[in-house]
Amino acid sequence: MAGSTYGNLFKITTWGESHGKALGVVVDGCPAGISLCKSDIQSFLDRRKPGQSSFSTQRSEDDQVEILSGVFEGKTTGTPISLIVYNKDHHSADYSQIADCYRPGHADYTFDKKYGFRDYRGGGRSSGRETIGRVAAGAIAVKILSMLDVKILTYSREIGGIKINYDNFDRTEINQNPLYMPDKSAALEVETLLKEKMSEMDSVGGVIECKISGMPAGVGEPVFDKLDADLAKALMSIGAVKGVEIGDGFAVAASFGSANNDEFQMQQGNLVKTSNHAGGILGGISDGSEIILRAAVKPTPSIARIQHTVNRKGENIDIRIKGRHDPIIVPRAVVVVESMAAITLVNQLFAAMTSNMERIIDFWKSEK
Amino acid sequence: MAGSTYGNLFKITTWGESHGKALGVVVDGCPAGISLCKSDIQSFLDRRKPGQSSFSTQRSEDDQVEILSGVFEGKTTGTPISLIVYNKDHHSADYSQIADCYRPGHADYTFDKKYGFRDYRGGGRSSGRETIGRVAAGAIAVKILSMLDVKILTYSREIGGIKINYDNFDRTEINQNPLYMPDKSAALEVETLLKEKMSEMDSVGGVIECKISGMPAGVGEPVFDKLDADLAKALMSIGAVKGVEIGDGFAVAASFGSANNDEFQMQQGNLVKTSNHAGGILGGISDGSEIILRAAVKPTPSIARIQHTVNRKGENIDIRIKGRHDPIIVPRAVVVVESMAAITLVNQLFAAMTSNMERIIDFWKSEK
Amino acid sequence: MAGSTYGNLFKITTWGESHGKALGVVVDGCPAGISLCKSDIQSFLDRRKPGQSSFSTQRSEDDQVEILSGVFEGKTTGTPISLIVYNKDHHSADYSQIADCYRPGHADYTFDKKYGFRDYRGGGRSSGRETIGRVAAGAIAVKILSMLDVKILTYSREIGGIKINYDNFDRTEINQNPLYMPDKSAALEVETLLKEKMSEMDSVGGVIECKISGMPAGVGEPVFDKLDADLAKALMSIGAVKGVEIGDGFAVAASFGSANNDEFQMQQGNLVKTSNHAGGILGGISDGSEIILRAAVKPTPSIARIQHTVNRKGENIDIRIKGRHDPIIVPRAVVVVESMAAITLVNQLFAAMTSNMERIIDFWKSEK
Amino acid sequence: MAGSTYGNLFKITTWGESHGKALGVVVDGCPAGISLCKSDIQSFLDRRKPGQSSFSTQRSEDDQVEILSGVFEGKTTGTPISLIVYNKDHHSADYSQIADCYRPGHADYTFDKKYGFRDYRGGGRSSGRETIGRVAAGAIAVKILSMLDVKILTYSREIGGIKINYDNFDRTEINQNPLYMPDKSAALEVETLLKEKMSEMDSVGGVIECKISGMPAGVGEPVFDKLDADLAKALMSIGAVKGVEIGDGFAVAASFGSANNDEFQMQQGNLVKTSNHAGGILGGISDGSEIILRAAVKPTPSIARIQHTVNRKGENIDIRIKGRHDPIIVPRAVVVVESMAAITLVNQLFAAMTSNMERIIDFWKSEK
Repeated sequence: MAGSTYGNLFKITTWGESHGKALGVVVDGCPAGISLCKSDIQSFLDRRKPGQSSFSTQRSEDDQVEILSGVFEGKTTGTPISLIVYNKDHHSADYSQIADCYRPGHADYTFDKKYGFRDYRGGGRSSGRETIGRVAAGAIAVKILSMLDVKILTYSREIGGIKINYDNFDRTEINQNPLYMPDKSAALEVETLLKEKMSEMDSVGGVIECKISGMPAGVGEPVFDKLDADLAKALMSIGAVKGVEIGDGFAVAASFGSANNDEFQMQQGNLVKTSNHAGGILGGISDGSEIILRAAVKPTPSIARIQHTVNRKGENIDIRIKGRHDPIIVPRAVVVVESMAAITLVNQLFAAMTSNMERIIDFWKSEK
Repeated sequence: MAGSTYGNLFKITTWGESHGKALGVVVDGCPAGISLCKSDIQSFLDRRKPGQSSFSTQRSEDDQVEILSGVFEGKTTGTPISLIVYNKDHHSADYSQIADCYRPGHADYTFDKKYGFRDYRGGGRSSGRETIGRVAAGAIAVKILSMLDVKILTYSREIGGIKINYDNFDRTEINQNPLYMPDKSAALEVETLLKEKMSEMDSVGGVIECKISGMPAGVGEPVFDKLDADLAKALMSIGAVKGVEIGDGFAVAASFGSANNDEFQMQQGNLVKTSNHAGGILGGISDGSEIILRAAVKPTPSIARIQHTVNRKGENIDIRIKGRHDPIIVPRAVVVVESMAAITLVNQLFAAMTSNMERIIDFWKSEK
Repeated sequence: MAGSTYGNLFKITTWGESHGKALGVVVDGCPAGISLCKSDIQSFLDRRKPGQSSFSTQRSEDDQVEILSGVFEGKTTGTPISLIVYNKDHHSADYSQIADCYRPGHADYTFDKKYGFRDYRGGGRSSGRETIGRVAAGAIAVKILSMLDVKILTYSREIGGIKINYDNFDRTEINQNPLYMPDKSAALEVETLLKEKMSEMDSVGGVIECKISGMPAGVGEPVFDKLDADLAKALMSIGAVKGVEIGDGFAVAASFGSANNDEFQMQQGNLVKTSNHAGGILGGISDGSEIILRAAVKPTPSIARIQHTVNRKGENIDIRIKGRHDPIIVPRAVVVVESMAAITLVNQLFAAMTSNMERIIDFWKSEK
Repeated sequence: MAGSTYGNLFKITTWGESHGKALGVVVDGCPAGISLCKSDIQSFLDRRKPGQSSFSTQRSEDDQVEILSGVFEGKTTGTPISLIVYNKDHHSADYSQIADCYRPGHADYTFDKKYGFRDYRGGGRSSGRETIGRVAAGAIAVKILSMLDVKILTYSREIGGIKINYDNFDRTEINQNPLYMPDKSAALEVETLLKEKMSEMDSVGGVIECKISGMPAGVGEPVFDKLDADLAKALMSIGAVKGVEIGDGFAVAASFGSANNDEFQMQQGNLVKTSNHAGGILGGISDGSEIILRAAVKPTPSIARIQHTVNRKGENIDIRIKGRHDPIIVPRAVVVVESMAAITLVNQLFAAMTSNMERIIDFWKSEK
């Protein structure tokens, strides 16, 4: 089946492999009339590109994006926006060792079972480079959200078991440490841990948190296409994500109704909630308060230690994964989470425009 | 937008409100030739019907299903299967008190914002009764899975903070206590807690776990429609679910690559994994080992205590929710989780039939 | 696969067989706040119900619709509207003769090849009764269009080779003759032909025409989801339709650019076209002028003459189709064409609301 | 909305404008293991490229395709195939005259109404160059069909009112005249007509016919996603197509049941139809006989004569369209029709694999 398209009204289709010629995305359903230039997208790609710090792969890729269609005289035309990033530093030779073996924690075995063979160069389509298309599209989605006064903030909440302290929360800090953590001292602790784990040829995982403010109430569908259901799919579709939470998430399991319910209250003429355990979504529909998401990211499966595994011939073997790998994926995945959340929100904001007949009549009357 | 349809090749469309005439589902894309009778579906509905124990709402509903189409001479015809359950015990009068106020933890406010007004009787479409259609369809999906030797087991893993002890795990126990827990002593503990919380007019949450065995390796799409991404959406689309995990879930965040990677090994000629932190899915594709899912369920928002809230006129008010409510949703949601997981798996199993050209040629050759 | 759902934002799912318990439709994505009652839908169903004249099957069906969900206090709620029509006069005995043979012109053989067996009673799902769900949903779509000042007029343009004369065009006549023709004298001619063909145990075909006025310009997508492409699918999906035209249709093949191009002109401050060969659609997008569609309908395949065919055992046999059949489908299909066109237009009108960012900003600003 | 994606299981997404940097397509859902190289696709693009004869635009484009992803070691990997064609000869200057005016028969006005502005260079996205992506994807679809022994033949049936004579039908002739007509003498007649019309600064239309043999019976969905309904959408989505027919098409309107029904007969142990008025599809499902389609193509709207029209300021003006235009689109559209038909057939062949449970069980058993 075709599983590289995401979204309905705002639809993205990604393509490309780790060591192919290029990777890219087609963004379809982007409204006309939005100012869009290369740097809008490049700034997002720069947040995920390799080599930003000693904690990411040293593969040398500029990841420069090119806009091939859908923009005319600096504005989106409403037709598909095709974005491309050429691969440059793809040393295929590095990967010959893994052509015939199944790396633990990777998709080598499952690809072989599904397709009968696979592009073994750097994981092919299962590589983290697949997210380039998501992030390029995410830059556009975030731009649309900002035009609707919806703001999105994403950061590392926890790495290797070290959590941020919300008392130290400093949003300006996020872009000032290589870990995208909003707590400087936690970040320093993590750096120490990472160095230790790198020396042990090991890798670590973490949790990414995403907060969205300014979402109007009333967005989301009440049954299968709940706003939180779509967000869960969006985040879980990112490689290495193994869990997703909305609001209090798994903590609700040990809570009680009297504590977990968010009460409503009028404040200066506005309806507000006095708490936000729900994370901004009730019955699958935004309630106007902050939307809070979290994604758990597993430790990078590529580690340089000897691991036991099996090759394509069905023989037990030992491998040691060479090459340039991230000891931690979390920091580079921050912008991927933000992108997937933003794409989902834009899609749902567009869908919500048809929920009420009176507003539809108003819309078309003003058109005629 | 239209958000009451789920699935692609095996597609379900649900409809109905808590206090409308009936609720139902249309199952489209069910293959022809499956023996199907009312009792196949009824046995699933019975697992979610109210009044099974003192821990669920005393609303008196038989929830008898009727098959209206798609079955001929006891077998599915391949055309849409329409299933209906008529509402019987809908005392609308009970709900007049909430017509104009926004119950904390419920979707009253968000429905009003989205649609401009709402069917306030028992929550209308946002009621837990919406899941009748899911479960009726789920019964068919589970039947299809069993014909493909895929087995699914679902139960309460944790309620009100009390977790099952896997050393006591007894699958026959699941259907013998009202909490659907596979650990008798944990169930007894929970019963005590629930009685206490009911006397305090409070409610509790929990965690549901679902294990699927027998899935062939190679099912799932590598990018957006990852098997785990679809499962995450499926589970998060169930009302009251606030978190979803695959395999080790959030625990991966504090793990290390060397511990979290599952090694492959040949055993008696078969490739197996020596551990299963991944929960049976690698790169979005099933790896042939057990698939493990968990969903966190919030405490029932309807509690009889006084709560502060706001009415439609924008006035601060106090409410006390009367009526018949479940102090705990988890046990009745077990079969809903199982149903949504099964529907998702069937859909992906069907989609996986076109991943490899050689197999497609074989299929059509045998047809001609 | 699942092929009983149509539409995206305004989505319908039909179900039911000719001789099953009931037929119906779930309409999802209908905006909230529309006044809707049973008679709105019944009046549409009455236009397709059997037994309206001597030229339609004498099967006795009231085809009374019931609204099962999605309407509260007389208004649509925005959640799925489930509509049901119970079958009454289903003499299954009449059909036992055809259980094992493949009627020429019918889908008996193709259903057997696709599904392995079939519900042979009255054609099962391939019966014309399948259109009940389309028409019930169409009634809602036409109501939405009328609220947006879009008007739709549908009628028989040609039956058995006899065409209406546009000089005699009288729209009030459409509902006054059993053939739904807007030309009284053509209708009389057709009646004579039909009597003759009925006496010869034969059947006739025809052409249905549909004109839509009031569509705003700018609706439709420029590539695959062109407004005319969607309309073509909508009409061709009606059983017995073998051709679809937009505007001048096949006549363009023998025309020249100088004649076929519609020139634009300002008239009293409005841009108009001085001709309408294009039928209201340019580049897949509505141009504000009348949209003109035509569908060719084949003669009813059920005829009482002896026909040669084959049975399931693979033997050459002769059959004579008994039972109650329409000698002409066209008049009853008029409302089906109108319904499918209306559903398509509503879907595209909703989709067109997101084509331009400025209008999206305006929409959401007025919401907040 | 997003309207540049077509298909479900075999899904294509096209992008690009007439005078942008490039055009392309992403083909998703292509099975793994198909030998595919550039020349497979190039040979299809060559059939639509400009400048093949004096009867097509003299715009000089090589239309060389590049495969950017989805192929490894000469075989498809099952992941998205990204194909790109760079624009070379795009003299934007030629088009400055039309930036502010609405060309009759073109989508200039409707694009402006939909999007608020448009890329006026050569029609932007509404240009015939948009079909490059369709044809590149079509080449893959035709290759898949041929692996399943399904053959497809497409040609010009009628141009400028001159029809082929089926008695002269010669399939080898199709690629030997610039008009892709299978009747040499008809082609010569058309050439004379075209020269005359070119000297009159006029353009002509025509009809394209497509015949598919080898389709297994049982492919197609019985209600909305009928095989013929999908084909109708596919063909009508091609710019300039104004009508679509299956089998006898509009001729059925004047036929009778006794003549139009195709009788079944056993011949040498095989079930065959003794005629094929239905064009190979009954009840929306293939019947194993030849599938016959036709599309009516309007005369090229770009003509060099003076035409009356309106500009963006709302003033009546006269224009004379300069530039390089095809006096007839039909020959170049032949491969576009073939491509769209093939993509639709592949999609439906894949979908048909899940219609029967027994075959699904067989498929998965052979997998395990």
